[in-house]
Amino acid sequence: MPVDILDHDLQLIYESAVNVAKQAGQVIKEAFLKEKNVDTKDCFADLVTETDKAVEKLVHEHIVSKFPSHRFIGEETVSETGAKCELTDEPTWILDPVDGTANFVHTVPEVAFSLGITINKKVVIGVVYIPVKDEMFTARAGQGAFLNGKKLQVNNTKDLKTALVITEAGSSRDATSLDIKMKNIHKVVTNCAGIRSYGSAAYNLCLVASGRGDVYYEYGVHVWDFCAGALIAEEAGAAVIDPAGGEVNLFYRRILAACTSDLAKELSSHLIHLDLESD
Amino acid sequence: MPVDILDHDLQLIYESAVNVAKQAGQVIKEAFLKEKNVDTKDCFADLVTETDKAVEKLVHEHIVSKFPSHRFIGEETVSETGAKCELTDEPTWILDPVDGTANFVHTVPEVAFSLGITINKKVVIGVVYIPVKDEMFTARAGQGAFLNGKKLQVNNTKDLKTALVITEAGSSRDATSLDIKMKNIHKVVTNCAGIRSYGSAAYNLCLVASGRGDVYYEYGVHVWDFCAGALIAEEAGAAVIDPAGGEVNLFYRRILAACTSDLAKELSSHLIHLDLESD
Repeated sequence: MPVDILDHDLQLIYESAVNVAKQAGQVIKEAFLKEKNVDTKDCFADLVTETDKAVEKLVHEHIVSKFPSHRFIGEETVSETGAKCELTDEPTWILDPVDGTANFVHTVPEVAFSLGITINKKVVIGVVYIPVKDEMFTARAGQGAFLNGKKLQVNNTKDLKTALVITEAGSSRDATSLDIKMKNIHKVVTNCAGIRSYGSAAYNLCLVASGRGDVYYEYGVHVWDFCAGALIAEEAGAAVIDPAGGEVNLFYRRILAACTSDLAKELSSHLIHLDLESD
Repeated sequence: MPVDILDHDLQLIYESAVNVAKQAGQVIKEAFLKEKNVDTKDCFADLVTETDKAVEKLVHEHIVSKFPSHRFIGEETVSETGAKCELTDEPTWILDPVDGTANFVHTVPEVAFSLGITINKKVVIGVVYIPVKDEMFTARAGQGAFLNGKKLQVNNTKDLKTALVITEAGSSRDATSLDIKMKNIHKVVTNCAGIRSYGSAAYNLCLVASGRGDVYYEYGVHVWDFCAGALIAEEAGAAVIDPAGGEVNLFYRRILAACTSDLAKELSSHLIHLDLESD
């Protein structure tokens, strides 16, 4: 049964999310310049550090103490248990403690704390914090997107030829998906103004939201990588779709966010639509 | 006949180069957030703006007034005349007024002013300034590399598997070279920790110098894109080579700068070595 949440409560949840993002950012910033203990997950390019785990623990404990009825989906918890994500109508905090772990390990500043909150299976709050740059991106459904309190607005680029496209090869080294990703990049670069890769899905979506890129797409991402950034991009005016067209499915592991729907459609028409095991 | 330059004079030239970089940075910063008039050069992805031209004029006038005997190679002057670059033993200022013009046009902060100075055909001074971030990268041959006065040191990564690789698809849309570039990226991504693209060769080299990336390679760049950054990377401890191995030829339009020579060799062995028309 759909959950009813009062505006007052939503405001509390939002403030609490921003608060915990700041705390998490402090932990990330303190660890940023230090030596890291790195483990690998699915393959040699899929990394996890103590900081990923410490931040996830911090957020989980925050939820348990402040909103004990709320549910939680965290990247590291899911990675450890291997469980499928299950979304209910209850408020659910979806967390990537450190999005861009390879950047974090290499002391590259584009490292994001990404937290989306769903109610009735829709993302209603998105918080992406880049602690090293002190950039706090926030959005609430229907209320716009902000960077450090300043309202964001996407670009107006309609034509792929003049568009700056952001995408990633990602951390999977599965030969079949890499092959399709490379074919896509080849096709896209042939038809666009330039391709950029910054190594964090959450940050990439915030770049589109801020007009520092026209469109971002990626196959192979997870719900915790993109759910917060997708709301931020959408609230800044982006067309956020499934790369094959139609509505985004949070668990289908693919996303396309373009500053205009014309651009979204044109880019979509160039892509081979990789199907991956859902979250 | 080789030119003899006193240390005293070199110091003057260096200070003058940093000075003009700051002036140019002011021009770039003022234009950064404004609407730009954009023209295309070789193809739809190869851009030039009034700011590129204004900065090139500023630097050229600076040289004419301060060092009238010095020679000058500027990206926009070469693009307009189509002349081949000719390097003599005389002090020569090699300029890319705005490296990362597509970034500049899209209000993406990774925009570099790049100025290298050769004497006896060797780069002896390199200045790369990122005005929007106020990052001034400098190097003098044999005297180390610096970011805003702080000494730079590359990483110690030896193994491609753990390396963050920076490269670019570039602004050429020639099908044959794009095909080879994509094959290279495919091969590299399969074997490395991740690929990043920031859209400016000069900046990419400074990232390797700063340890914010382990290796950068690119085919299709020009002498003005990389000569300053290559010295900065080298002076920070990087192995800077021709991607096929051996010494860099300033006009061969390709470069590889790695934090260790082991990494340089391993990456080189994966690449198809694109031959392009020299500068």
